[in-house]
Amino acid sequence: MEIIREVNEMRNIIKLLKQGQKKIGFVPTMGFFHDGHLQLMKKAKKENDTVVSSVFVNPLQFGPNEDFDRYPRNEEEDIRKAEYVGVDFLFIPPLDEMYPQKMQITMTINDRIDVLCGKARPGHFDGVITVVTKLFHITQPDQVYFGMKDAQQVAVIDALIHNLNFSISLIGLPTVREEDGLAKSSRNVNLSKRERAQANWLFKALKHGHQLVVDGEFNPAIIIKEINNIISNNTDGKIDYIEVLSYPELKPVSDMNQQVIIALAVQFERARLIDNLLLNEDGDIIRFWKQEESQ
Amino acid sequence: MEIIREVNEMRNIIKLLKQGQKKIGFVPTMGFFHDGHLQLMKKAKKENDTVVSSVFVNPLQFGPNEDFDRYPRNEEEDIRKAEYVGVDFLFIPPLDEMYPQKMQITMTINDRIDVLCGKARPGHFDGVITVVTKLFHITQPDQVYFGMKDAQQVAVIDALIHNLNFSISLIGLPTVREEDGLAKSSRNVNLSKRERAQANWLFKALKHGHQLVVDGEFNPAIIIKEINNIISNNTDGKIDYIEVLSYPELKPVSDMNQQVIIALAVQFERARLIDNLLLNEDGDIIRFWKQEESQ
Repeated sequence: MEIIREVNEMRNIIKLLKQGQKKIGFVPTMGFFHDGHLQLMKKAKKENDTVVSSVFVNPLQFGPNEDFDRYPRNEEEDIRKAEYVGVDFLFIPPLDEMYPQKMQITMTINDRIDVLCGKARPGHFDGVITVVTKLFHITQPDQVYFGMKDAQQVAVIDALIHNLNFSISLIGLPTVREEDGLAKSSRNVNLSKRERAQANWLFKALKHGHQLVVDGEFNPAIIIKEINNIISNNTDGKIDYIEVLSYPELKPVSDMNQQVIIALAVQFERARLIDNLLLNEDGDIIRFWKQEESQ
Repeated sequence: MEIIREVNEMRNIIKLLKQGQKKIGFVPTMGFFHDGHLQLMKKAKKENDTVVSSVFVNPLQFGPNEDFDRYPRNEEEDIRKAEYVGVDFLFIPPLDEMYPQKMQITMTINDRIDVLCGKARPGHFDGVITVVTKLFHITQPDQVYFGMKDAQQVAVIDALIHNLNFSISLIGLPTVREEDGLAKSSRNVNLSKRERAQANWLFKALKHGHQLVVDGEFNPAIIIKEINNIISNNTDGKIDYIEVLSYPELKPVSDMNQQVIIALAVQFERARLIDNLLLNEDGDIIRFWKQEESQ
């Protein structure tokens, strides 16, 4: 595995790969790899000739009171893990390579963001689409891989790709979970022992919501209320949101007879956790999500 | 020459060209070709394996009181001319191919735009960078060609390419002129006979400005004043601006000892004309402008 730190070096490598007709799979990350990241890389390895992954904690997508400074980092481990799962090029640009000067171009997303995490994190997804656009231009992937844990991020990248005509296929892979069901996240290390023991109730509550649908409950409000009760009764976390929305449009729905996401965010003392379930119109859980390149 | 009207068709052709390792030169236009456009295409033909040009009058870059509706169009002639100069693929998408839905992503440029035409046309360059980004993604060029008549546009595209890390070389080609010096423009057809006879004074005034520099005048204010006098005394046009700025940064300068642009816009009854001269630090005229791809 080669480690690349300069934009122009990455660009030159991509040029050679393109000349060699290599199909490029790209996994953009903020590092501190856990199994969720590694699954993306493994899948990319299976489906492409070359896997490029990036590690860049993007300040543009953190709000002034968010956890940019304490976002966990461990470059040495990341390099070891990426190499182990077969990443070919790990792009780790320092801040001034990605932002050598004040941005002259501002990108804003004005759809799919007034709900879920977008509501509580104004500007977050503007930062995401900006850095992802830059990374797409540098790495020129055929296919790009994201985890469905950040389902709103996948919906936003879907809008970005279609709206700006990127020739890239977007693949969302299933959330990877701890044994007790807690979605793997780089932020889980910031949970206290007591909070960690409670945190599996997020997924339990989502599964209960799914069971309600299976049992014939079609009213989103009732599903949301029951999930809320379970989390309130079993954790110290403060519920940020529990929402049921169409996917990937992220519009309110009046019933569950369509492709919907049940998504939630819970704020613990030093970690804000998110999780979701995607259900098709029959109430079955959708684990993979793929949008072919198109206009 | 093939005429392409659908985004996905254009995209599939580009994919095949890329598989064939073809170097792609791209000439984005709003059509109604004159010699200026054709020179861009000829140059692209010389420097690339395949030339793609586009004809798209982009509503996003016209203000509510601007001339979108009466912007001149002549598709049949454009096709004939493009074929004649060797364009390989002419991309002529209808409006709903380029904007099938309301834009979910907004792109804004906040540098190089508070001067020259950007000042009088708020939002114009936001529309330009948006459509150019879409066209770049669809046509994936190695080199892109613009005319230096729209020098601010070239400066803005330069910022776009660098800021968002596009892997594209930007080439600005010399303004093509009528025999009397008037810069060729699709909008010249909107001049009255009397205005057309006066319009060559714009270039005469710029050349006088250059002569002043050659003769040792280094004060931009004096050069601007003399150009102003010449145009006021010899045309019915209303001067919109005459400015001397660094290039491509487009910042105010206190003297002429650097790469500068002398640029002007004059509003006639039904046509607003622009013209400029680019001078290097020795006061010599720069005709070509090229920025290699880089970060």
